[in-house]
Amino acid sequence: MRYAVCLFDEFEPLDAFGPAEMLGWLPPPDSVGYYSLKGGAVCTKGMTVMTQPFCELEGEYTCLLPGGGGTRPMAENEAFLQAIASLCRQAAFVLTVCTGSALLAKTGFLDGRRATSNKMAFDWAVSLGEKVRWEKKARWVRDGHVYTSSGISAGIDMALGFIEEQYGPEMAKKIATITEYRWDNNPQDDPFARV
Amino acid sequence: MRYAVCLFDEFEPLDAFGPAEMLGWLPPPDSVGYYSLKGGAVCTKGMTVMTQPFCELEGEYTCLLPGGGGTRPMAENEAFLQAIASLCRQAAFVLTVCTGSALLAKTGFLDGRRATSNKMAFDWAVSLGEKVRWEKKARWVRDGHVYTSSGISAGIDMALGFIEEQYGPEMAKKIATITEYRWDNNPQDDPFARV
Repeated sequence: MRYAVCLFDEFEPLDAFGPAEMLGWLPPPDSVGYYSLKGGAVCTKGMTVMTQPFCELEGEYTCLLPGGGGTRPMAENEAFLQAIASLCRQAAFVLTVCTGSALLAKTGFLDGRRATSNKMAFDWAVSLGEKVRWEKKARWVRDGHVYTSSGISAGIDMALGFIEEQYGPEMAKKIATITEYRWDNNPQDDPFARV
Repeated sequence: MRYAVCLFDEFEPLDAFGPAEMLGWLPPPDSVGYYSLKGGAVCTKGMTVMTQPFCELEGEYTCLLPGGGGTRPMAENEAFLQAIASLCRQAAFVLTVCTGSALLAKTGFLDGRRATSNKMAFDWAVSLGEKVRWEKKARWVRDGHVYTSSGISAGIDMALGFIEEQYGPEMAKKIATITEYRWDNNPQDDPFARV
């Protein structure tokens, strides 16, 4: 499985790199790569990351879509929205963190699905996808092959939850131990829902 | 304050990007930047990050040194070791994650100081700095202006601990809430020490 981290300018770094760290410990041939609409440099918060273009993604893959300040302009970028909707329709699994789910909601991809998003931008996410069955109190939500998580660090818990379900609990525990991460493996346990 | 994330090939991504996420929420003019010995592209685990050279770092700064598989060759790279020792001697604060402390130990910078490192590479770290007062059971350790943390995710807890001490507890709590991170604010609470 190729884990394709789908980036855009001003993505939230930990939204992408937190789950990517956990997925990066899966045994080969599974691998993680970084992609963007046109490829090349993607910039956020003092960082420049090099990416491959979305069109080079082939074979079996899973999309990981972060959120961040850049989701506001991306939600108005038709070319980007069409590209991620197309990628996600062909993906084995789709994982979103924070307002990544807001972008996907805007494309209609989440219509009728249960999903969550960052609690501090929740109303905005809801406004972009009124047919989505939004769940406010959730660290992450799985609906079929689509996993959406709450804000920033919640993506790490979701990634381990995904690994637990797709690779088994031993693999998830092993990776949490290697990375010394205190995994909260209960997707419903969301202390930030009331903030 | 400029937070200088000091990178090298095959650094562990979350070692760097976890603490950098937390530091990145400090109000301006504080900022985060990415540096390496010669600047340019640094590669790790399918990712390429662009960096500035160490020599362009000036003014008041704090070094953040990650660990990872790349610390093994770096521990034999005299030019790199001399450069990070020189940077750290002039830094306002020094933060290391995982085997970042092993590299710093090799330079002698940690001699006589209390420090910790990744529990799975602890013996290696100890072998590189026999004059360091290593502490095995610690999520992170502060000795003066030098903070060292245990493996990967522990760096996030340390970064928030640093923010608590240098910017106040309200700032640390605020950033943990924004990032929806379940901060363990007790540096002694280390469930991974016995693994």
